[in-house]
Amino acid sequence: MTAHVIRWGILGTGRIAGVFAEGLRELPDARLVAVGSRAQETADAFGDKYGVPRRHASYAALAEDPEVDAVYIATPHSSHAEETIRCLRAGKAVLCEKPFAINARQAAEMIAVARERGLFLMEAMWTRFLPLMGRVRELLAAGAIGEPRMVTSDFGFRTSFNPKGRLFDPALGGGALLDVGVYPVSLASMVLGEPERVSGLAHLGETGVDEQSAAVLGYGGGRLAVIWTAVRTNTPLESTILGTDGWIRIHRPSWRPTKMSLVRQGGDEEVIELPFTGNGYQFEAAEVMRCLREGRTESDILPLDETLAIMRTLDRIRESWGLRYPME
Amino acid sequence: MTAHVIRWGILGTGRIAGVFAEGLRELPDARLVAVGSRAQETADAFGDKYGVPRRHASYAALAEDPEVDAVYIATPHSSHAEETIRCLRAGKAVLCEKPFAINARQAAEMIAVARERGLFLMEAMWTRFLPLMGRVRELLAAGAIGEPRMVTSDFGFRTSFNPKGRLFDPALGGGALLDVGVYPVSLASMVLGEPERVSGLAHLGETGVDEQSAAVLGYGGGRLAVIWTAVRTNTPLESTILGTDGWIRIHRPSWRPTKMSLVRQGGDEEVIELPFTGNGYQFEAAEVMRCLREGRTESDILPLDETLAIMRTLDRIRESWGLRYPME
Repeated sequence: MTAHVIRWGILGTGRIAGVFAEGLRELPDARLVAVGSRAQETADAFGDKYGVPRRHASYAALAEDPEVDAVYIATPHSSHAEETIRCLRAGKAVLCEKPFAINARQAAEMIAVARERGLFLMEAMWTRFLPLMGRVRELLAAGAIGEPRMVTSDFGFRTSFNPKGRLFDPALGGGALLDVGVYPVSLASMVLGEPERVSGLAHLGETGVDEQSAAVLGYGGGRLAVIWTAVRTNTPLESTILGTDGWIRIHRPSWRPTKMSLVRQGGDEEVIELPFTGNGYQFEAAEVMRCLREGRTESDILPLDETLAIMRTLDRIRESWGLRYPME
Repeated sequence: MTAHVIRWGILGTGRIAGVFAEGLRELPDARLVAVGSRAQETADAFGDKYGVPRRHASYAALAEDPEVDAVYIATPHSSHAEETIRCLRAGKAVLCEKPFAINARQAAEMIAVARERGLFLMEAMWTRFLPLMGRVRELLAAGAIGEPRMVTSDFGFRTSFNPKGRLFDPALGGGALLDVGVYPVSLASMVLGEPERVSGLAHLGETGVDEQSAAVLGYGGGRLAVIWTAVRTNTPLESTILGTDGWIRIHRPSWRPTKMSLVRQGGDEEVIELPFTGNGYQFEAAEVMRCLREGRTESDILPLDETLAIMRTLDRIRESWGLRYPME
């Protein structure tokens, strides 16, 4: 194994764990060496399916595996904090699936452990690392649409109501906001920073979690973001960034964007397409590996202070509805 | 003059007065017979330009003109109530430009005068009467997208800041909400009714009016509308109606819609186009004439109770920002 190869472990064996394993295949300098599950059987099944040599029957065993450099946390939201801290304490670099935690308190604890130990930690908001989003940042930095004044973004999908499912279970941090609403909040954060004011309404369904909601986020200088999210209703899956001198429309599905329209003030629509191979999860993994090789403990594309601000915003949105999870 | 021709007068000679005069040309059974201004010179200039035989040097003279059946009120927002009531008291049917009034109190007074006298009155929300909007109502009534759950709609445009202009003057009911935000609010009303809850944020600029804002409107059963509006920033000018079994996208500019996409659950996008001739203002005039011929005192497509509810919603949105006009 050359010095350049980063050895990955995946903690958890659910759907997103498989998606990430497939993403890693796009990177010649990444190797998926280990998986950890709560049972040997599921670890083995995942190992067989994705060609992972080391299969651990506990999360602790994965965290302690000396052959692993970086761990991707793929458990449900409600255990992100515990598993991230477990891996950091074992000396691993950690990429933690979004939402980073249940709330800002948990996020601050995770970040404090990483910083105390000088270890790498990053939120796995994979969309931010896609090629198109890099181009969006370049256009904004170059003033292509003037000063951004407003961001609008949605992420809603229609799933069947299942009171026992993860998405509807308050004990697992269920609801639309933490699962998919975090994408619009993260986009707004990337463009406008942390809001000063939050105002929102939600429909809390029969299990008490947000089945659909909308919020307005207010920033310095009168800038605004408008976001909406749902788990029982499809939404357009689009985002727009409205500036003083034009606007950018990120086409659907804007959580996996490959196409945008750029309209400069008084100009025609320019369509920019940036397709990619693979499922797109390789870009966040590549960012982790770039940082590790450069000796960085966090990404400047998604710094930990920003992840913490995003969690504070999610907390404030939930506060505006009166939604608290039982573990809080 | 046959019994079927309706004789119109226009009160005011500004931009929208000319637009309405042009719209009337599409209707063979309408005749623009009179215009009223505050000065003979502007009345004559308008009369020359649009071929109007009777030119009055005061609004009172127009209201009293026995040759006029119906008056279109085309003055700035802040005088809609006064001029509408003046014309009703003179026995005229009235079509009053949007926003119907500065606030719900004024609107209730206007409606009371019309009802007391048994006279026709309608808000000139012209978009609602366009052919495409009729098709939207038919699709919703037929359950094409199931039960509507969410409406999103915006109307923002970029104009230069002009502290002396109507749009920026609090004394004339300036700001984006009353001028163009009323379109998204009216669409939400058409689909979802009157909201139970209102939550919003605005940027009040240096003259104290809303230069950009966004609001979430909450309805029974957890239904939501998300609207945003601006006067110094262009917005996409689109609307969507998201249902349990699909969605409708009204393409830009959705305030003058001729094209929509209908996506039924699991189906492909169906594009429906309903172009029209003329500038589109003829449809609201035709609705007034249909009602007058049928002896109706209000339109069932835009009833006065709904106009009043829309004004209450606009009031509540402004309340959430703390924006009151000096005349209130």
